[in-house]
Parts: sequence; C-alpha cells; structure tokens
Amino acid sequence: MVDLIDINKPILDLNDRLAVANRERLDAQGIFMLDLLASPGAGKTSLILATIAALRERYGIAVIEGDIASDIDSRRIREQGIEAVQINTGGICHLESAMIKRALDTLDLAPLDLIIVENVGNLVCPTDFYLGENVKVMILSVPEGDDKPYKYPGIFQAASAIVLNKLDTLPVFDFNEQSFRTQVAALNPSAPVFALSATAGQGVNAWTNWLAEQIDASRSR
Amino acid sequence: MVDLIDINKPILDLNDRLAVANRERLDAQGIFMLDLLASPGAGKTSLILATIAALRERYGIAVIEGDIASDIDSRRIREQGIEAVQINTGGICHLESAMIKRALDTLDLAPLDLIIVENVGNLVCPTDFYLGENVKVMILSVPEGDDKPYKYPGIFQAASAIVLNKLDTLPVFDFNEQSFRTQVAALNPSAPVFALSATAGQGVNAWTNWLAEQIDASRSR
Repeated sequence: MVDLIDINKPILDLNDRLAVANRERLDAQGIFMLDLLASPGAGKTSLILATIAALRERYGIAVIEGDIASDIDSRRIREQGIEAVQINTGGICHLESAMIKRALDTLDLAPLDLIIVENVGNLVCPTDFYLGENVKVMILSVPEGDDKPYKYPGIFQAASAIVLNKLDTLPVFDFNEQSFRTQVAALNPSAPVFALSATAGQGVNAWTNWLAEQIDASRSR
Repeated sequence: MVDLIDINKPILDLNDRLAVANRERLDAQGIFMLDLLASPGAGKTSLILATIAALRERYGIAVIEGDIASDIDSRRIREQGIEAVQINTGGICHLESAMIKRALDTLDLAPLDLIIVENVGNLVCPTDFYLGENVKVMILSVPEGDDKPYKYPGIFQAASAIVLNKLDTLPVFDFNEQSFRTQVAALNPSAPVFALSATAGQGVNAWTNWLAEQIDASRSR
C-alpha cells in the first residue's frame, strides 16, 4: 500500500500545481468554485439544481459535471438554461485539476461568479485531489446511514460544510441525526451541517445563504 | 489519465497473481468466496446478515470486512457468532488481493464453505481488482436512483448478479424499476437481478437460493 502511494506521489504534485493555476485563473476573474462530493445517488445534481434556482438571479453560474460515463446530469442542468461542461473520466474515480483546466477552457468565464463542480460519486477518491476550488462541500443522504463519518472520516474532515440530504425520508430510515452530528463535530468542529431536502426544498435557504456568504467573502479579500 | 493507468499496471498484475494464489488456496479447501460491492450505505452489511441468517445452518461462513476506517461492521457480524476479519485500508478505495491473503491467514479455513468479502463502499475502484473470488455481486439501493447503470457501467458489467436493495422504500422514491432492469439487461444480459429488502426480508430467499446454487455448483466442478 505504501508502494502505491509513493508511485502516485509525482502525479499528485502535478495535480496540485495545475490546481493552483486553476485557482489563479479563477481569482483573476472573481469566480468562486465549489467542489461537491458525495456517494452515488446522494443528491448532488438535485442540490445543484436547488442552488441554481436560489442563486441564479444573484450570480452567474456554470456547472462542471464529472461522471464515469453518461451525460444525464449535464442535460438536467442545461434544461435550466445553465451552462454545463461534461467530463467523462472513463473509469477514473475522481476529477483531477487537468480535467478542470480543460473544462474551464471551454467555458465563457466573463459572466460567471460561481462554478459548481459535481465530482464523481465517491466518498473516498476525490477527497485528496485539490482542483483549485475555494471549498469542498460533501453531501451525505439519510438513506446511507448515520455511521458514515466513522467509516469515511477523510471526506468529513476535508469538507468546509456538510449537507445532510433527503431529510424528508427520516421517518423511513433508522437514522440518528444527533449521533451523526456528534460524529461530524468530533471530526470537523468548524464545519456547519445543513440538514435539508434538495427536492422538497426544506432547509435549502440556510445552505444557499451560507454559500452566498462564502462567495461574497472571497471577493472582499 | 493514460499515464496513471500505465503506472498502475505492474501493481494490478501483482494483484492478479496474488488473487490466483488466493483462489487456489480456497479451491483446495472447497471454499466459495463472494466479493460484495456497493456504494456506502447501500446495505452490504445488512445483506450479509440476512445471508448468514438464511445459510448458516447449511454452510460454514466467515466474513472479511473492508473499510477505510472503523470496525462497526465487523462487530455487527461477530454479534451473530460469525467470524469476521476487519481490514482497514486507511484511505485506499478498494481491497487488494494481498489484503485478502493476510485475512485468510488469520482465519481457520477448515470449517468454512463460504467467505463473504464486504468491499470498501465504492461503485468504481473495487471493480477492477480480482481478489480470488468466485463471483462479484453488486448492490444498488433504491434511494440511489434508477440511472446508476448508465453512470457506473463498469460495476454493472463486472457483477455476476445484481441485488436491488431497500425495495420497501420504493413508494418513497422516484425509482423506475423497469427502466433500471432494462439498463442492466443491456449492460449485462446474463446477470440475474434480485429485488429485495435485506432488513424487511422481502425477496431474500431468491437471492440466497441463487447463492447456494453457485456454492454447490462450484464444488461439483
């Protein structure tokens, strides 16, 4: 296992260098980038659609969609009249900063304030790859169970905020929200937890208000 | 991306060599090994518990638990009086055959007929790693959504059978079972799909009957 990590080290370093270049390019345009991480089916695209609906009057928004295969999610975004760039990794379990660079090359950056990156559905691999984002945010959905911080601590520690999605399904699942919040607080005391339902709308305002604060704060720096 | 794959190639070859050694060792003892793949929270441990309950009178069973961190799942298995070996990968997103070899070293193989490997929760990385198993089986759970075969085709193609879990939550989610089955059939026409609820019990018999057939058939060869 140590061999695997050593062998990949130069690639990670290259990734970081390209990520810094992405960041400098976005800073020069005043664009905030959010890297959204979650398991498959946790509701990344649904949260992006809810976020677009709440913030599109205030910010110019585009989406970079990372998937192993298919362009289902990009099409859902484009149906809302929002630009979406599809990256198909063809089996790679995370996005890398070189892929983001190519996506940025295809976007008209001038009208943009916010780029949302939907990473590949995976609670492990994307955690260690800096893409040039301002923040990583992760989603856990209620059906996945309240024990996930114990099992996947890395992603809970790497996230600047944590969204607990599908809150409307709490009555159906044996999910202890207090236990979940206690685990998260132990791993990442400063990260806010937004419990919401991206499709039903419950709790979405607190999330989008926080995101808007992060965007505005990044510009005043 | 091609660079990354090339660099990993020798490691995959080593993995395959050790997997073949695992397979020969298990064949010599008449032990069937199942590699169980799914997203985090899809119900791998719940399916293992239901499978143990159904088959423990007929077969000697042990479990190898793969997790990034924690031993929650192993403890749940051991509470049933079933041997469980915990592998914590410490950030690696899949199990490898060298890890399985070490787990086999710690088990008393003589009384065993079936070893169930619970892989790390991930729809991508474990797909390409042969561990010496007889079959890979994947679980998709209803809350993850019916579009996952389009998005993660590799794992649906690699699986010998597919379990659709949390069937009792179909009324709560917008999940088109027919669409799901059509996608699966296009990717993997020979794989049976077992729709069930591992916790509620619905549909579990068809799954455990199939698994028992596979075990018995592997011995008669």
